[in-house]
Amino acid sequence: MSETLRVGVAGIGTVGAGTLRLLETHADRIAERAGRRIVVTAVSARDRRRDRGIDLTGVRWYQDAAALAADPEVDVVVELIGGSEGVARALVEAAIAAGKPVVTANKALLAIHGTQLARAAEAAGVPIAFEAAVAGGIPVIKGLRESLAGNALSRVYGILNGTCNYILTTMRREQREFGEVLAEAQRLGYAEADPSFDVDGIDTAHKLAVLTATAFGTEVDFAGVHVEGIRHVSALDIAYADELGFRIKLLGIARRTDHGIEQRVHPCMVPVRTPIAHVEGVFNAVVAEGDFVGRVVMEGRGAGAGPTASAVVADLIDVARNRSVPTFGRPAALLAPAEPAPMERHRGCYYIRLMVVDRPGVIADVTAALRDEEVSMESMLQRGRAPGEAVAVVLTTHETEEARMRRALARVGALGTVLEPPRTIRIEDL
Amino acid sequence: MSETLRVGVAGIGTVGAGTLRLLETHADRIAERAGRRIVVTAVSARDRRRDRGIDLTGVRWYQDAAALAADPEVDVVVELIGGSEGVARALVEAAIAAGKPVVTANKALLAIHGTQLARAAEAAGVPIAFEAAVAGGIPVIKGLRESLAGNALSRVYGILNGTCNYILTTMRREQREFGEVLAEAQRLGYAEADPSFDVDGIDTAHKLAVLTATAFGTEVDFAGVHVEGIRHVSALDIAYADELGFRIKLLGIARRTDHGIEQRVHPCMVPVRTPIAHVEGVFNAVVAEGDFVGRVVMEGRGAGAGPTASAVVADLIDVARNRSVPTFGRPAALLAPAEPAPMERHRGCYYIRLMVVDRPGVIADVTAALRDEEVSMESMLQRGRAPGEAVAVVLTTHETEEARMRRALARVGALGTVLEPPRTIRIEDL
Repeated sequence: MSETLRVGVAGIGTVGAGTLRLLETHADRIAERAGRRIVVTAVSARDRRRDRGIDLTGVRWYQDAAALAADPEVDVVVELIGGSEGVARALVEAAIAAGKPVVTANKALLAIHGTQLARAAEAAGVPIAFEAAVAGGIPVIKGLRESLAGNALSRVYGILNGTCNYILTTMRREQREFGEVLAEAQRLGYAEADPSFDVDGIDTAHKLAVLTATAFGTEVDFAGVHVEGIRHVSALDIAYADELGFRIKLLGIARRTDHGIEQRVHPCMVPVRTPIAHVEGVFNAVVAEGDFVGRVVMEGRGAGAGPTASAVVADLIDVARNRSVPTFGRPAALLAPAEPAPMERHRGCYYIRLMVVDRPGVIADVTAALRDEEVSMESMLQRGRAPGEAVAVVLTTHETEEARMRRALARVGALGTVLEPPRTIRIEDL
Repeated sequence: MSETLRVGVAGIGTVGAGTLRLLETHADRIAERAGRRIVVTAVSARDRRRDRGIDLTGVRWYQDAAALAADPEVDVVVELIGGSEGVARALVEAAIAAGKPVVTANKALLAIHGTQLARAAEAAGVPIAFEAAVAGGIPVIKGLRESLAGNALSRVYGILNGTCNYILTTMRREQREFGEVLAEAQRLGYAEADPSFDVDGIDTAHKLAVLTATAFGTEVDFAGVHVEGIRHVSALDIAYADELGFRIKLLGIARRTDHGIEQRVHPCMVPVRTPIAHVEGVFNAVVAEGDFVGRVVMEGRGAGAGPTASAVVADLIDVARNRSVPTFGRPAALLAPAEPAPMERHRGCYYIRLMVVDRPGVIADVTAALRDEEVSMESMLQRGRAPGEAVAVVLTTHETEEARMRRALARVGALGTVLEPPRTIRIEDL
């Protein structure tokens, strides 16, 4: 155990450089906790000359990441390239085939190929560690896989994308619209030039698929995630949410239902009294509900060099100590088949905002449409009056089925006095 | 690894019974995650006949807990007796001497004898696992020892006692006084008949001492904890806190300072915008600040059968998989000597409430006393007027040194127009 653990790092972007910096800065502390020294012996990145502010003297350089797996002086491969296919996938597969443990921050890879990779890794007797793939430095994977291992979990949910949470937080604080805040976030480097991955919920869905498998011991089922992003959230909806005692958050939610496991990513109204309502800006949070432990909330920075490096290094320490766990908590051979619950069977409460012509009889038509689909109203808000002009009407419903809700909305949307497609946001019972 | 892990449980009270129930309820799930079955083969408790709602058929019973350590069919000892001396200590020492891993929920034992026990355990090559000793089911020990192991931590703090948090929460919500709420909590079973251990901050201090050692890799230093309880918090202070944008929480706080490691337990004013301000009722929370990871917050149920059993079982799964970590993160031989920072050197802001005679010149005398000790005022509040009668005056200060503050308060308290000893509550910069 006193032998050095030799690490090969693929991908020296923000997180890779942060990991190298952390391993160097706290080399002694890490050695004490790992029981041996952890040293980077090889790296791979596209551009060798780029200045990353780290000293790579004596570290071997590979153009081809997969070569790291074959290097006899690499004991463990850290994959920080990203993407579900191509180089990242090839490297991870090569490392497993070579019998080397893998540490990865790659949620896309795990969301798409997690089940096969888990099987391959367990067949080869090597661990795949991926604390950095979900919620950065927050120990949510270890929390679910180890600390809550004795519990049957009923629900796991969280704010898993800092970009979206930053945008929603800023929209609320500054009463501004999505497009404007997104453009600013892009200028500040908080959002990518192509923001789709974040704002359309895909990144959250990747992370949720990984969380779900870890929480419920099922095969990873990214295809089974219902995904909606935050583009349609307006400043008006945020103001109404405030008035109704809610915050709007993009959540990834997985829960056991009578129809299978529901996985969904969409904007949610969350009661302002819940801890998750107060998770602001780029912070992430994950909440797990277990039958013995009750509700556990973990919050912290979900991205960035430091937090992600912290998670990668924690995984490396586990590798150094030969502390390993089956990839998704239970052995890969025992992972239950994914049983996606159809979104139509989802039950919950809804916020509905309509833009209607302010004319007698409009509300009667709307409420009749809801009644005809047996959707029961909980409250109604209308601010201001503008006879003959467009005015916002906000409704909240009692618990109802998604399919019923969709039919009711189709009816409402077809009314001549309803000027825009109805906007709905699901209200979460947290 | 396929051999059953045989467990001896000492102490079959609420937590012990909960642990037995959890091990039985989720035996298969736990076996999958532990890599082998975990079975209770022996227990010890004072009264054999008491009905605990659990089936103990085929489980050996010992009157003397220490006998568990000697039982050849016990591989690991779970100590749930409590108390820093006597039976609990004897059992843990006997288990270590017998080369058996120990899982314990005993914060008092670890707070007082943690350093020696860690040395003995490491010399014997057995782990001491104690997730259940701090904050119940919240994975704070694993979080600090493993997940944040790569970070230099600057501060760790938390709400560590559910009884105190329940009392403070109820006082605020119902605008009632401490004594009344305590009496009710005792009737409801939320507080002990002798509440001193909880409300005087001792339980929090035990947990803090354990957290400090785990976070900073130092010897456990319970004697170095500055402890104040919540008996002096009044409904009036809580109302003023609300007005000033704070909540009052009993926190345990450990931080590195230029004068050593500061450990203190006392009521704090925490800004209402911080996550910890929203941790209500019997919930606990721990916040850790690391140089790479930033701020990580963990919240959940800190006590009770289910949450504590969840933590005990997580530790047992680690034992079953031979996943172990040095007791306080770094090897016992490397634990740094405790360097307690003297409380007099503490720096912070203060809330001060005075009951004064409402008479011209009083405020001038008070502010002069503060000025003479170079304590700089930040704000002053006085509600209502009652010429010639007692009235509350509330001051908050800029950052100052505790020693200076104490001198200033002595001067203020000596003024003839100040009717009661000044009440102070430290304002935390979180």
